[in-house]
Amino acid sequence: MAQVKENVCKWIEGAEKEAVQFLQALIREPSTQMNEAGIQTIIAGKLEELGFHVDVWEPGGEALLNHPDFISPRESFRGSPNVAGVKKGEGGGRSLVLNGHVDVVPEGDLKDWSVDPYGGEFRDGRVYGRGSTDMKGGNAAMLLAAEALKSCGVSLKGDLIFHSVIEEESGGAGTLSAVLRGYTGDAAIIPEPTNMKIFPKQQGSMWFRICVKGKGAHGGTRYEGVSAISKAVSVLHELEKLEQIRNSRITDPLFSSVPIPVPINVGIIEGGDWPSSVPDLVKIEGRFGIAPDERADEAKKELEETIAALGNTDDWFRTHPAEVEWFGARWLPGSVDKDHPLLAILKSHFTDVTHCTPVVEASPWGTDGGLLTAAGNTPSVVFGPGVTSMAHYADEYIEVEKVITCAKILALTIMDWCGLSDEEERE
Amino acid sequence: MAQVKENVCKWIEGAEKEAVQFLQALIREPSTQMNEAGIQTIIAGKLEELGFHVDVWEPGGEALLNHPDFISPRESFRGSPNVAGVKKGEGGGRSLVLNGHVDVVPEGDLKDWSVDPYGGEFRDGRVYGRGSTDMKGGNAAMLLAAEALKSCGVSLKGDLIFHSVIEEESGGAGTLSAVLRGYTGDAAIIPEPTNMKIFPKQQGSMWFRICVKGKGAHGGTRYEGVSAISKAVSVLHELEKLEQIRNSRITDPLFSSVPIPVPINVGIIEGGDWPSSVPDLVKIEGRFGIAPDERADEAKKELEETIAALGNTDDWFRTHPAEVEWFGARWLPGSVDKDHPLLAILKSHFTDVTHCTPVVEASPWGTDGGLLTAAGNTPSVVFGPGVTSMAHYADEYIEVEKVITCAKILALTIMDWCGLSDEEERE
Repeated sequence: MAQVKENVCKWIEGAEKEAVQFLQALIREPSTQMNEAGIQTIIAGKLEELGFHVDVWEPGGEALLNHPDFISPRESFRGSPNVAGVKKGEGGGRSLVLNGHVDVVPEGDLKDWSVDPYGGEFRDGRVYGRGSTDMKGGNAAMLLAAEALKSCGVSLKGDLIFHSVIEEESGGAGTLSAVLRGYTGDAAIIPEPTNMKIFPKQQGSMWFRICVKGKGAHGGTRYEGVSAISKAVSVLHELEKLEQIRNSRITDPLFSSVPIPVPINVGIIEGGDWPSSVPDLVKIEGRFGIAPDERADEAKKELEETIAALGNTDDWFRTHPAEVEWFGARWLPGSVDKDHPLLAILKSHFTDVTHCTPVVEASPWGTDGGLLTAAGNTPSVVFGPGVTSMAHYADEYIEVEKVITCAKILALTIMDWCGLSDEEERE
Repeated sequence: MAQVKENVCKWIEGAEKEAVQFLQALIREPSTQMNEAGIQTIIAGKLEELGFHVDVWEPGGEALLNHPDFISPRESFRGSPNVAGVKKGEGGGRSLVLNGHVDVVPEGDLKDWSVDPYGGEFRDGRVYGRGSTDMKGGNAAMLLAAEALKSCGVSLKGDLIFHSVIEEESGGAGTLSAVLRGYTGDAAIIPEPTNMKIFPKQQGSMWFRICVKGKGAHGGTRYEGVSAISKAVSVLHELEKLEQIRNSRITDPLFSSVPIPVPINVGIIEGGDWPSSVPDLVKIEGRFGIAPDERADEAKKELEETIAALGNTDDWFRTHPAEVEWFGARWLPGSVDKDHPLLAILKSHFTDVTHCTPVVEASPWGTDGGLLTAAGNTPSVVFGPGVTSMAHYADEYIEVEKVITCAKILALTIMDWCGLSDEEERE
């Protein structure tokens, strides 16, 4: 077996130029929400070429739309296909799902970019562009690993199942649809940008909106009104205290190097419409982290109760309670057992390839792994090239060397997890 | 003289129906900024009818645009005429300016109105509509007083000068233009809605904007960023403390019943653009009250220094100072001496007409009186019908009875201040 693994790694090293070209082709498809068809055609074509049985479909139907974990800003996915590919093993092995999303967040203000966000510029060992890190680099690494196995004539015992999904950036409707269509496995790897750390646990998150009321008045007689901005400051203060309370409960050593394991991030504040009027409404929107072992409904309740409790000590809030809504995206938290065999295999091949000890941590953000684990009963580990601080920002790029290293680790992990056919084992 | 005064008051009482019709005609002109020509035609016509020498002009020219007190969101007033009317006295008396603005703030959301904002509905002794209180009721009262004097054959010694100006709601370019054109006097009355209180001092105000910087990051790793919203809370706290300091200095008994003589009102807050990102910019806009005896540039400096001082105790602000801008409107503060003879006359006629003691206070907001006093060297007192809490809101209305009462007090005050011709005095 050692020889075949060495061959696979060598093959991957030799394919760097083609890997860059393939990654550039993915980045040149501006696959923002509603615009995923182009990139899915490329990926479906690659899967066909690699001998996968390919399924392309537009998510939809009642089972999806009525599923308790379904969340999306849209109800129709017309023109936004999902792709799955299955390569059946010869039997007797464990199946593995490789899950990657093709949707990217918008490029934002072009003035902030020094390169074309959809140009795929390759420079100094980096490929630039929206989605390079999140997560077209990871997708390229998975496909490169699969191509290496095919090129090196590797036959697996277990099935290899590839998800190329839409909607990860909006709460996971693509992965949920893949799960409901039957594309589950004994375990899954999702190469989101973990900076090559291994994340067996993932923080979930939900978006909240809090509407804080005030009472309008002329600014010159502001004492006749109640400023919704002043009241919003009280709400912000409660959110800070709640974040401290929630994080003080987290003792898992996987979070030991994370300053705030489950943050409450206030991302938007907006209120008032005239400088010399007392504002009568402020809207606060943010992201509420969910601990890996926490239920989303319990987390919701804790925020709602905290905001309601403001009425116990403040007369204004008693008669004009701030209102909590949950809206937009949600990512379920996820967790695999620390003794899960996929973790051991992944860690060992990380060391084989890099000669370093892997960092195993809990992820500071959600991925489709929570859904895959919960709704798809497929324990999911997140591990991939690229750094979070690049994702969603201007001049996003990925280091090609990391893509290559990740592809090697994935290829070796696939072989170990799914098992090599007996003939190959004997070689 | 007693007889002529009684005649004038009687005449005003008898003219209530016509006064309501005239006020309705004023309200039916939706004289928002840029749409003042219609109402000015009505007022110019009325002034002609009352024997004033009428001047209609569009403000402009370098003297206006380069004047240190000029402030306006626009540089051209084409289609937005000012009107002035002068009725020369027979000599030997004091001149009086009657100043009223015809511009109104926009009607806002029509859903909040139970009546047509420009319908001038008359019901239960009230006339409804945008501008009824601020300040078409006051304008009607002034013209009614002037009409009563003419109808009762009253001749004055001093000149009566009428200003019907644009732009009060945007900082006073209309009054400044009238002053620069020479329409000043020995004193002025401005019947803004004081609820029939007499305001010898007026608070000024300026609009400020503070831009607070942060450092963007993903909300899941919010500790990698710096939240501009958290930093804005520090700024809000400083504004609160500064408001306390500034108000603790005010000892003038005219403010004794005002909870916050010179408020700092934060009217707008806006920051961030994505719930799960750390916001890197928050914008705060508000109204900064200026004490009657304070200089605007000193007030500005105090706010700027307070915000700059945040850098002394906070490293983030030291390297990323919040930025203060002054924008939009500004109203100069104003003050007339407490022994000014116009005040005594006005108070005495208030009591004559209402049989009550007048309330003399400092105003919680600015008017064009600051400009008239400072740039026009015309000491200005603010006194008029209508309540502030109506101004700028939906279902704005004015009580006709207050308009009538105000007209009587104004007519008697004009006679006393300007002086009656000797012939009449002898009657």
